[in-house]
Amino acid sequence: MTVLILTCHQDVTTDMVVAKLHERGVPLVRLDPADLPGEAGLSAEYVSGDFHCYLSADGRMVSSKSLRSIWVRRPGEPAAHAPEPSRWLSAETGQALYGALCSTTARWMNHPRQADQARLKPWQLRFAHRSGFAVPPTVITTFPRVAEQFAGQYGKVVVKSLSGPPRGEPAIALPTALVEPGTDFAGVGGGPTLLQRYVPKRADIRLTCVGGRMFAARKVSASGQVDGRYGDTGHAWEPAVVPDRIARAVHDYTGLAGLAYAAFDFAEDAEDVWWFLECNQGGQFGFVELETGQPIAEAVASWLAQEPRGPA
Amino acid sequence: MTVLILTCHQDVTTDMVVAKLHERGVPLVRLDPADLPGEAGLSAEYVSGDFHCYLSADGRMVSSKSLRSIWVRRPGEPAAHAPEPSRWLSAETGQALYGALCSTTARWMNHPRQADQARLKPWQLRFAHRSGFAVPPTVITTFPRVAEQFAGQYGKVVVKSLSGPPRGEPAIALPTALVEPGTDFAGVGGGPTLLQRYVPKRADIRLTCVGGRMFAARKVSASGQVDGRYGDTGHAWEPAVVPDRIARAVHDYTGLAGLAYAAFDFAEDAEDVWWFLECNQGGQFGFVELETGQPIAEAVASWLAQEPRGPA
Repeated sequence: MTVLILTCHQDVTTDMVVAKLHERGVPLVRLDPADLPGEAGLSAEYVSGDFHCYLSADGRMVSSKSLRSIWVRRPGEPAAHAPEPSRWLSAETGQALYGALCSTTARWMNHPRQADQARLKPWQLRFAHRSGFAVPPTVITTFPRVAEQFAGQYGKVVVKSLSGPPRGEPAIALPTALVEPGTDFAGVGGGPTLLQRYVPKRADIRLTCVGGRMFAARKVSASGQVDGRYGDTGHAWEPAVVPDRIARAVHDYTGLAGLAYAAFDFAEDAEDVWWFLECNQGGQFGFVELETGQPIAEAVASWLAQEPRGPA
Repeated sequence: MTVLILTCHQDVTTDMVVAKLHERGVPLVRLDPADLPGEAGLSAEYVSGDFHCYLSADGRMVSSKSLRSIWVRRPGEPAAHAPEPSRWLSAETGQALYGALCSTTARWMNHPRQADQARLKPWQLRFAHRSGFAVPPTVITTFPRVAEQFAGQYGKVVVKSLSGPPRGEPAIALPTALVEPGTDFAGVGGGPTLLQRYVPKRADIRLTCVGGRMFAARKVSASGQVDGRYGDTGHAWEPAVVPDRIARAVHDYTGLAGLAYAAFDFAEDAEDVWWFLECNQGGQFGFVELETGQPIAEAVASWLAQEPRGPA
């Protein structure tokens, strides 16, 4: 039984997991959907009620029946490397690939449907609260007056993107930023804006959950730093113990969301409360593993290596 | 309790349902996501565990708590009518709108997650078979030789798009077409191609399922016509009786797919077999209702008018 990894070519995090799968002797195929069709090929047949699908990639041919698991790591846009790429060709190719893969019995980390839901930040905030996390007061609005009132009520607020940085070249970073006092909120009318009460934090927490196994890491904040993902704080990521209350909430959240993999970001305040900031269903873990030595790649490999469930 | 209809401005089918909702005295708001932000506005607040969201559209303000149902009819791309539209603004706006709506307790026709899955044609073929429909032998492939063998084996085959016509102006129709004998299949390497055994048909069948209620319509085919959706056959759509076997399969398929609304296309052959061609989760019904007099708009309105379930 083979593990299918959907990711782009330069992906060091995948290399870490691939090494662990090789150690276990688990066969795997690495496929960038951008190479389909071209470097990679696909055939799915529906004849007399039988479904048979095979993929060619990585110089190998693999039957969908022999897929034990599918890791959606960092896949390229389908058909992006075609000689004449177009949105329509990407749509056709994406339908063919993901449609065929969704018809298999393989286990997903994460299933595209669950991933789509889990990406929605308003959904995250709502279900984080329901799962028992502490969530800072937040507003998402297109009304300048609502933004103004919210900022007035909470004093220090941050603004962040809902959907992450814009795609494209050159890559743009969009760090979470403090809203300056006296800000003019008229621009809120031009695009939905997410404002959140600022959490004065002692440390950033990254908790990675892999099929129920949790790895928490903590990095002491530099004073005045708002977004711990960018810039150097002079401190390193260190392993942290997961409080019981957080473990229960992570368990509930990943269950509700149907996620085999999830990377949670928290802000730890002076009272040791871990405030839920976001849950990235496809978040990086390489940097944490390198600094803490936590065996996250091993946990991913171990999850992917399990045999599939019965017929879907 | 209000019905929310997500659709573009020119949409006669929506007008038919709106008229029925008005007759029942059910309040409704019509919103084109393309008008957000601008004509329409949104605010979602997450404070002390409470979630409160309101939408302004259509000159009205509606709270998400008062939404009984959401009909995803033919929504525009979020923020498409903004003064400076961009893919990023659309992503941010789509996250805000659908993220907030997915956190409500409203009933969906159809939920975006279920709709995404149901659009995947390979998924359709697989689950149509599992639900008990007769499905013509089909192949989706990027390998010219596989296409050639398939065509050789079945003699008469048709080719169709996986994802529908390309978006954009001018609108392009992509009718299902017969593959000519001696076709060169080299082009299959350039994009995944769907080939299906041709079903010599006596009639086209359109079956519309609305929350379990089924409306079947039948149109006698013009001789030699391949795609009944385009062109005049000289025959009109007429109401048809749904065979028990088909009713059971429709019930199972819509259950598996989680669809409150679904439009099935079948080809009826000389032995009265209804061959599953596709299931469009957002398929039109206006043309069927106009020709057959079947009360489909009334069924949609009736489903939308039901009170929501308990808290999600």
